[in-house]
Amino acid sequence: MKFSNLLFNSLKESPKEAKIVSHQLMLRSSMIRQHTSGIYTWLPLGFKVLKNIENIVRYNQNKIGCNEMMMSTIQSSDLWKKSGRYSDYGKEMLRINDRHDNELLYGPTNEEVITDLFSDYVNSYKGLPKYLYHIQWKFRDEIRPRFGVMRGREFLMKDAYSFDLDHESAVETYKIFFKSYLQTFIDLGLQPIPVKAATGAIGGDLSHEFQIIAKTGESELAYDPELVSQNLLNKSYEEITSMYSASDEMIDKNRSNVVIGRGIEVGHIFNFGTKYSLPLECYVLNNEGKKVFPHMGSYGVGVSRLTAAIIEAFHDENGIKWPFNISPFKINIITSTHGSNNEVAEKLLEKLTLKYGNVSYDDRDLGMGRKIKDSELIGIPWSIIIGKNYEENKQLEITNRSNGEKSFLTESEVESFKFEQYTP
Amino acid sequence: MKFSNLLFNSLKESPKEAKIVSHQLMLRSSMIRQHTSGIYTWLPLGFKVLKNIENIVRYNQNKIGCNEMMMSTIQSSDLWKKSGRYSDYGKEMLRINDRHDNELLYGPTNEEVITDLFSDYVNSYKGLPKYLYHIQWKFRDEIRPRFGVMRGREFLMKDAYSFDLDHESAVETYKIFFKSYLQTFIDLGLQPIPVKAATGAIGGDLSHEFQIIAKTGESELAYDPELVSQNLLNKSYEEITSMYSASDEMIDKNRSNVVIGRGIEVGHIFNFGTKYSLPLECYVLNNEGKKVFPHMGSYGVGVSRLTAAIIEAFHDENGIKWPFNISPFKINIITSTHGSNNEVAEKLLEKLTLKYGNVSYDDRDLGMGRKIKDSELIGIPWSIIIGKNYEENKQLEITNRSNGEKSFLTESEVESFKFEQYTP
Repeated sequence: MKFSNLLFNSLKESPKEAKIVSHQLMLRSSMIRQHTSGIYTWLPLGFKVLKNIENIVRYNQNKIGCNEMMMSTIQSSDLWKKSGRYSDYGKEMLRINDRHDNELLYGPTNEEVITDLFSDYVNSYKGLPKYLYHIQWKFRDEIRPRFGVMRGREFLMKDAYSFDLDHESAVETYKIFFKSYLQTFIDLGLQPIPVKAATGAIGGDLSHEFQIIAKTGESELAYDPELVSQNLLNKSYEEITSMYSASDEMIDKNRSNVVIGRGIEVGHIFNFGTKYSLPLECYVLNNEGKKVFPHMGSYGVGVSRLTAAIIEAFHDENGIKWPFNISPFKINIITSTHGSNNEVAEKLLEKLTLKYGNVSYDDRDLGMGRKIKDSELIGIPWSIIIGKNYEENKQLEITNRSNGEKSFLTESEVESFKFEQYTP
Repeated sequence: MKFSNLLFNSLKESPKEAKIVSHQLMLRSSMIRQHTSGIYTWLPLGFKVLKNIENIVRYNQNKIGCNEMMMSTIQSSDLWKKSGRYSDYGKEMLRINDRHDNELLYGPTNEEVITDLFSDYVNSYKGLPKYLYHIQWKFRDEIRPRFGVMRGREFLMKDAYSFDLDHESAVETYKIFFKSYLQTFIDLGLQPIPVKAATGAIGGDLSHEFQIIAKTGESELAYDPELVSQNLLNKSYEEITSMYSASDEMIDKNRSNVVIGRGIEVGHIFNFGTKYSLPLECYVLNNEGKKVFPHMGSYGVGVSRLTAAIIEAFHDENGIKWPFNISPFKINIITSTHGSNNEVAEKLLEKLTLKYGNVSYDDRDLGMGRKIKDSELIGIPWSIIIGKNYEENKQLEITNRSNGEKSFLTESEVESFKFEQYTP
């Protein structure tokens, strides 16, 4: 894609309202624009990142046999009154009256909706376990929205829900999601730390948060160094959860052999038994023809929050450093002047796009310095400069955004160069 | 995918509230479930169809250099007051007050939002023309929601917006979208008829609706038979729009050489000049450094509506007949009993999935008759029965859902059989 076709205009200075680095960099690099307090427009660059994250999350959910579906953003209040949560949610729930004065709300979560529909489609124990998920916008009417999309009012979540015949089977399901979450965050290029969590408004007795390590993270995080070992995914749920981890006030300050850092919550999983299936009368018949209320769990990933969290984890003074998998473009081609270099660039754009998918060419009528700065700000993992060195020695300059390493190559060498995937 | 893992439970009878065939069939085949009046949950099968349509629409927008982005569902009323449309929209606009009593609304369309943000990112004539789009949920608080997702309250739309330097250039852009829309609907397996339209609340002087031909369509449609010719896409905008077409009360009953049928509106495009750029002060500087207000257009496709419209176009007494591109599964494997046939089915499922992507295997503990009926109801284009004929002669039965044609083949013949794409 060419920059001339992109809605993009970098800002040198951070807007005042942006207090954290991810918010500053997302505004400066035209990823997002505030529409109104806590509500953002995802501009083309930010949208590409959001979709890349969404697709990695989706891939991992599908891999464990989770069925994708889509629940509406607007819900009726009826089910919330039945479950008893309509009053619990307080002012964070965006309540709406339609033209007939029916009480609606913008869904902050979907336990009620999924539980209500489940028994219409599964009525025998033979249909269990079943896993369902959707990736949908949610709304939480924060009193003071801030930190950009890290804590917006309208935000994108992946929510999965599981239905099992009994507690034992529900715990097995919980372990499957637990492991799948570790895999998801690792695929995103992140270092996940599972932390035993309180269950809060969702309910239940078994819950973990997934934090990612980021120097500028929102919470203090303490963990066994073994938790960031290479072979974490080969360990069992029991081994992993037996290792120490805690955040904020739960941290045991007297513990030894613990890494202290900062983290950002990006996922949360819950096992809450029959908390919703009982009041919403969701049951199946067991092998003796008796009513059984499924044991349920829910599993959330903050998709829009992750865009900001990843920036908190990967940035420097010049801008964002996206992991290759997530970057809006994998490679950015930069020319100094229009004319003959333009042709070289166009040819390279075509060839590299075929090979790597999303490749950009900054063809704007601007100086080389500005273009390099913009490329660093956006955080594209690889750049190719076709400039002075090309005019003099027919050499192109390849730069790795993460470590700044440069290679000088001929056109044909660039075509066969391995632009490798890396985590900054 | 195996049916045992799918949230699916077919209904023999149509629910009473469903008056049109698409609504009946979508409920009967577990594609959608009503959450509350005019608001639906997209169950796994319906969701797959929705995504398939969305991806074909996206592909065609990207092809004409349209930038994908994402505007929020909830909007501030400020811009609507500025454009003067806040009162125009009346009770169909879902109005919301947040906890601080700010006036918000669930976006019924996005001209205001996109116009407002545009000039933050483009400030020179060099940045024009520019095309942007998003695929997002919208809300229209219908007084009497009905006809399922054909006219729901919460619905998914693709909306594109164009910005041009002057009227002439905006008309050229309009023609590009016009042709792209014909291509999109043809790619979806549909027969589009462009009809000159009134502009209504959006404004402007140039507008077309795109109707698709469907026996059970909502409007009467009259058109030049040439409009459904094979080579429509090779004709120019001028040639196509010079051919006769009209709907409902606009039909000239005295005209000859006209086909009279029924249609369903699935797209609408508008050129509305500076109607929004002027009041919202969206301008760029021209080559003399003077302020110029871009000429704009908007281009909508009803993505969720299309799921129902396609069913209205393609169904019979036994169920839906999806075009191959859109079907939730391309091929459905059906076994009569568990045991040895199960192994053959599993092997085939694996091989065909590699080749065709989305393939299903109905492994439920149910009779063959019920499974065949369900496959027809869902509308899967091809089915493979591994039943009596397999046990006796090692033959599998391939059926084309559209014309009912059967072939009897051996296992290895099935593996190399060309399950061709077709439009029913």
